Amino acid sequence: MPSIELKKISTRAPKDFDKNETKEKLDKILLELDDLQNLLYAESKHAVLVVIQGMDASGKDGTIRNVFGKLNPQGVLVHSFKAPTAEELSHDFLWRVHANAPAKGMIQIFNRSHYEDILITRVHKWCDDKTARKRMGAINDFEELLTAHNNTKILKFYLHVSPEEQQARLQERIKDPKKQWKYNENDFKEAALWDDYMNMYEDCFEICSKQPWTIVPADQNWYKEYIVATTLRDTLKSLDMQYPGLKR
Amino acid sequence: MPSIELKKISTRAPKDFDKNETKEKLDKILLELDDLQNLLYAESKHAVLVVIQGMDASGKDGTIRNVFGKLNPQGVLVHSFKAPTAEELSHDFLWRVHANAPAKGMIQIFNRSHYEDILITRVHKWCDDKTARKRMGAINDFEELLTAHNNTKILKFYLHVSPEEQQARLQERIKDPKKQWKYNENDFKEAALWDDYMNMYEDCFEICSKQPWTIVPADQNWYKEYIVATTLRDTLKSLDMQYPGLKR
Repeated sequence: MPSIELKKISTRAPKDFDKNETKEKLDKILLELDDLQNLLYAESKHAVLVVIQGMDASGKDGTIRNVFGKLNPQGVLVHSFKAPTAEELSHDFLWRVHANAPAKGMIQIFNRSHYEDILITRVHKWCDDKTARKRMGAINDFEELLTAHNNTKILKFYLHVSPEEQQARLQERIKDPKKQWKYNENDFKEAALWDDYMNMYEDCFEICSKQPWTIVPADQNWYKEYIVATTLRDTLKSLDMQYPGLKR
Repeated sequence: MPSIELKKISTRAPKDFDKNETKEKLDKILLELDDLQNLLYAESKHAVLVVIQGMDASGKDGTIRNVFGKLNPQGVLVHSFKAPTAEELSHDFLWRVHANAPAKGMIQIFNRSHYEDILITRVHKWCDDKTARKRMGAINDFEELLTAHNNTKILKFYLHVSPEEQQARLQERIKDPKKQWKYNENDFKEAALWDDYMNMYEDCFEICSKQPWTIVPADQNWYKEYIVATTLRDTLKSLDMQYPGLKR
């Protein structure tokens, strides 16, 4: 039995969170983040890697736009991982990931990530359990490399939506002319594999846990964005950064 | 006490090796290698990484020219690692190495390598022992990643010259107009640190030994090239490769 059971974790904000109040707080946190990111860039001693995972329609793109989109784009890079190309497949699965690891001073966002190599691949049995275990070991080593040898802070977010909310959002993509470009009939086939995905996520939270995951209740975008921004803000604050003085 | 003591290992061919006979054998091995490399490329199931390390003037460039230069250049890539650039330094020390890891079907030669990060850096105390240990752990993990997740065979060669032979070759670079371009007065300063380098090499043979090192007696180029070519030939033969059939 995994120590995290997603079914038992709420996908919604706690009752005492007020939407408008939280949005006001978020605006303040985004201003703080703007300063902190500037400091991160100026000091260039730490790197930050933000991994965003979640089911289809869990709000990954929206998080990137509404949280990271507020920061100075010169210090923030986004990389979306799609199905690997032929060239990428001719290398180990972390090759394309390492190439996109953040330089010191930078915040790198991964929209999906190396975790897909132990999620979608396992659900569809493209990768057996033994290979998945080896991959998880390699992922732990790789995250340790970035952490120990390039001062990288790794923040991993799982955007936790309910299957009901996901269905509502997928239906919305069919109806809303501004969202139709996102519609992919395959998403419904993947959604049908919900329980398998949850099992694989739980396994990966268990085994790849040295760099911690944040399970973000994601049925309400305002709460999801608040949690992601707060976690990033608290992490950057903990780095105890200083503006470099004049170079003499 | 390390298990390999370089002082106790000969830098010359065993007495029963005849120069002309060995050169004839080498020519035959190079023909075999040409076939094997073609098969490696056609099958594209394995990758080969050849790491070449050694003191200045130990014959790294000559090995690359006289052994790997005989193979089809479409399937062989050479990367020379120099002092890291500002961009490279803003990443972990294996970032630039991973970017140059071989794709399946390819032979990648590293002229110097990630091992410099625990050799020259330790000799000059740019890197303390604790950091060096962490780096060696990261190197072992990285070599395991390439091996386990991309079918990479890693061959590591240490070109073992005597300090006397090195001095003779460095002096030759001053006298021979065709070799003067290679002369660097810094080489003599590094040569003076011989014993420190040997200690650091011995430590790295001990700790980074899962993918094995070949200590190549390198005072005579003909023997050095024969050993490198033979090791590569034997490795490629052990892969049990097959030409792919017609795709239907």
